[in-house]
Amino acid sequence: MRLLTGDRPTGKLHLGHYVGTIKNRVKYQYDYDCLFIIADLHMLTTKRSTQNIKDISGNARSAVLDMISCGIDPYKSRFYLQSGVMDIIGSIYFLMNNLITVNRLNRVPSLKDMANDINEEMPYGLLGYPVLQAIDILGYKANIVPVGKDNLSHVEVTREIAKRFNNEYGEVFPIPEPVKSIDSSLVGIDGKRKMSKSLGNSIYISDNDEEITAKVMKMPTDPNRIRPDIPGKVEGNTVFIYHDLFNKNKQEVEELKERYRAGKVGDVEVKKRLSNAIINYLEPFRERRREYESVDKLNKLIADGTFYAREEFYKTYIDVVNVMGYNKVWQGFNLNTK
Amino acid sequence: MRLLTGDRPTGKLHLGHYVGTIKNRVKYQYDYDCLFIIADLHMLTTKRSTQNIKDISGNARSAVLDMISCGIDPYKSRFYLQSGVMDIIGSIYFLMNNLITVNRLNRVPSLKDMANDINEEMPYGLLGYPVLQAIDILGYKANIVPVGKDNLSHVEVTREIAKRFNNEYGEVFPIPEPVKSIDSSLVGIDGKRKMSKSLGNSIYISDNDEEITAKVMKMPTDPNRIRPDIPGKVEGNTVFIYHDLFNKNKQEVEELKERYRAGKVGDVEVKKRLSNAIINYLEPFRERRREYESVDKLNKLIADGTFYAREEFYKTYIDVVNVMGYNKVWQGFNLNTK
Repeated sequence: MRLLTGDRPTGKLHLGHYVGTIKNRVKYQYDYDCLFIIADLHMLTTKRSTQNIKDISGNARSAVLDMISCGIDPYKSRFYLQSGVMDIIGSIYFLMNNLITVNRLNRVPSLKDMANDINEEMPYGLLGYPVLQAIDILGYKANIVPVGKDNLSHVEVTREIAKRFNNEYGEVFPIPEPVKSIDSSLVGIDGKRKMSKSLGNSIYISDNDEEITAKVMKMPTDPNRIRPDIPGKVEGNTVFIYHDLFNKNKQEVEELKERYRAGKVGDVEVKKRLSNAIINYLEPFRERRREYESVDKLNKLIADGTFYAREEFYKTYIDVVNVMGYNKVWQGFNLNTK
Repeated sequence: MRLLTGDRPTGKLHLGHYVGTIKNRVKYQYDYDCLFIIADLHMLTTKRSTQNIKDISGNARSAVLDMISCGIDPYKSRFYLQSGVMDIIGSIYFLMNNLITVNRLNRVPSLKDMANDINEEMPYGLLGYPVLQAIDILGYKANIVPVGKDNLSHVEVTREIAKRFNNEYGEVFPIPEPVKSIDSSLVGIDGKRKMSKSLGNSIYISDNDEEITAKVMKMPTDPNRIRPDIPGKVEGNTVFIYHDLFNKNKQEVEELKERYRAGKVGDVEVKKRLSNAIINYLEPFRERRREYESVDKLNKLIADGTFYAREEFYKTYIDVVNVMGYNKVWQGFNLNTK
């Protein structure tokens, strides 16, 4: 069983990414043949400046290195650059982009928000974003597609295109199943909003000890607790949310909560123990990171994944042109199809 | 200066095609470097059944042979199969399909009619038909695009995309000039409607003497002239429209008109002279046809044109990825761009 998922190349990942999606990917790799897309053509639908393009390489390497440090095994799973296979997906795309209507795409809720976010009238490519995503998924004949809330409707589009193709031309595509991710969005260090790069409230997977400690020290706690001897609230308290997630010493967490509720511990101690816990949590991450942090190694990894993806997409492409009858058209003209 | 134009592969051409567009193409080839597209991906926007696809080869050969017989010199101009370069145009397409908005495409008048004609809600690919057409034109860096009324707005889209690309990334594309064809639509042998394959009112360029004669004999003349000695009307009379266009003996035509107006000639004589004139007109067409009518020759011609188009489109693709900065992205990963 094959799984395809991935992200736009937006650079280094934070703990919110880890908790929300990467942690699941680490589990998936033991059950599925995983292919992780670095979706730089999706990026062009909303970010198409030369600076955005220039940033792809570095951002792709950062994200891949972060995923490896999170526990994705590059000998087991593969990463590929979407633009590195765009000739093949372009071919499949032209053969299939009439299998879905404009009206149907207009009903995909996420797209209008994306257009609003970039303050543009909907670009044609952005409206077709779910179609391109469908080709990514179907090109790999993926069975499983883990998605966040926003992308669930895109996988629905994929399923419709696949069914329609199978119906019109012949069975080529498995109908992919979306797997909704737990969507455990982690609150940022501001204690207010979801952790997000653009809000500057993130702890990055690649942060060092000092950065982590400094960020934890900035976290808000119970605002009513103006002195350490005042009993505090643990529920919804950012510091304890993080303790629950990242402190492996569950006994320590319970003791801290008790003392906090009783007004018997200072914020500084709670935070020091938290930053130590996070640093401790990330220790194996750092070990895995050290093994792959050379630019050359990362480049090779991404190139190898892209060549692998090419081969796999090419096989699907051949299936597509065979059932549609295009292979015979080209053979007739002695046009080499590779 | 380069010129790109062409048609969907719908099969053999009739005199209406010749008078309306092909005659112009024959002239253009002496002034421009002409590339004629066999637009089988455009076809998929409205005709995507396996039968439609199966028909591409034969239809493409028929159309090319007809164009050659009309006087297009295959040593001077080239024909290419659009699907034979779809990997390269797919790549260019993904890099550029965000440069035009959905609203803009919704304002292209021809598309809604096309969707209505096939009794479908607008497919996503059909809405993007002008974008694909833009990539065809820009991929060849064409300067001149002869178009019928319907496609004028498509070339406008092409110009907008080209300007926007040049502006955002750097000067790559000449801004193509549309050349409106004379749109001299020929009335069919029914004397009522424009000559059209689907109406069964066509004289084909490949028709033999008997077919031509039989079709001419069916043409309506002046309906008020129930006997040959009644004076007839020449203006708007189908038989004389054809005489004016295809009878090279202008003196004979004038004499016939005079006698017709005076009620001094029978319909049968007018028609016999017309069918002889058309047969005579098509004689050089048939000579050129004989030279290329082997399937192998036609296949090779189309394959050679397609390989030529590949090379030319590939050069443009390289220019596109260079100014966008994508070449550096791939070089970084050691991803071969070819």
